[in-house]
Amino acid sequence: MEELSEDECRWLLREPGIGRLAVVVAGEPHIFPVNFATSGDVVLFRTGLGLKLEQAIGHPVAFEVDGFDAAAKQRWSVVVHGRAVEITADTDPFAEDLRRVPVTPAVPGERLHWVAIYPTQLTGRRFQVSGDFAAPPPT
Amino acid sequence: MEELSEDECRWLLREPGIGRLAVVVAGEPHIFPVNFATSGDVVLFRTGLGLKLEQAIGHPVAFEVDGFDAAAKQRWSVVVHGRAVEITADTDPFAEDLRRVPVTPAVPGERLHWVAIYPTQLTGRRFQVSGDFAAPPPT
Repeated sequence: MEELSEDECRWLLREPGIGRLAVVVAGEPHIFPVNFATSGDVVLFRTGLGLKLEQAIGHPVAFEVDGFDAAAKQRWSVVVHGRAVEITADTDPFAEDLRRVPVTPAVPGERLHWVAIYPTQLTGRRFQVSGDFAAPPPT
Repeated sequence: MEELSEDECRWLLREPGIGRLAVVVAGEPHIFPVNFATSGDVVLFRTGLGLKLEQAIGHPVAFEVDGFDAAAKQRWSVVVHGRAVEITADTDPFAEDLRRVPVTPAVPGERLHWVAIYPTQLTGRRFQVSGDFAAPPPT
């Protein structure tokens, strides 16, 4: 088990994909798969919100992405801790730039709300797998 | 977007794989990828614990598994809400049966602690994807 540097974590998050967002609502954890993209250190996704996610805006969140490097037979996982902020209507140039990042939700339906996770911590791990785990997961 | 029945959720969780566990520690969300298996409605994983996960034992957790059905071009996601209980040393026959379920952590190193999630809620969603999302994700 190898701890990854922040630069390695950034590199692993460079391509848009599917991550899982964990939020706390009324003291209980909730988890949502989301299609994300990054801009610098900021994680971006689009959503139709919904009550639980809406309640998490402005609060701490954890966002996880994992993957498999078939050539190296290594699995990796990166976790971003930070604060979720809705930037749908922000008029500052930074927010406007973020809303130009291509973020394509796979879920059908309108996803009008832009959410940015401003990271406070970026951690990751990588480890060698063998046997059954050397094959890509069935996801 | 289609809501799944509990039976469909159970069926999607029938095969061991990788899921993501969300826990709350000191009011903040944390998220861990884990190799899991199920026995009936109980979700099982093995771990070396670690401080954050240890603090989540006995508390509410959320556990998410998602996947892609290439033939149907459908993505799905199942979320188990429940309570995480360590069953490593429990001597009742039910816990002993659970510890006979093959649960193989991909992470190297000793994973001596058995954790069971006793579900209180089982929910899932399925939706059609198209274009780029029709290809399996790069994980």
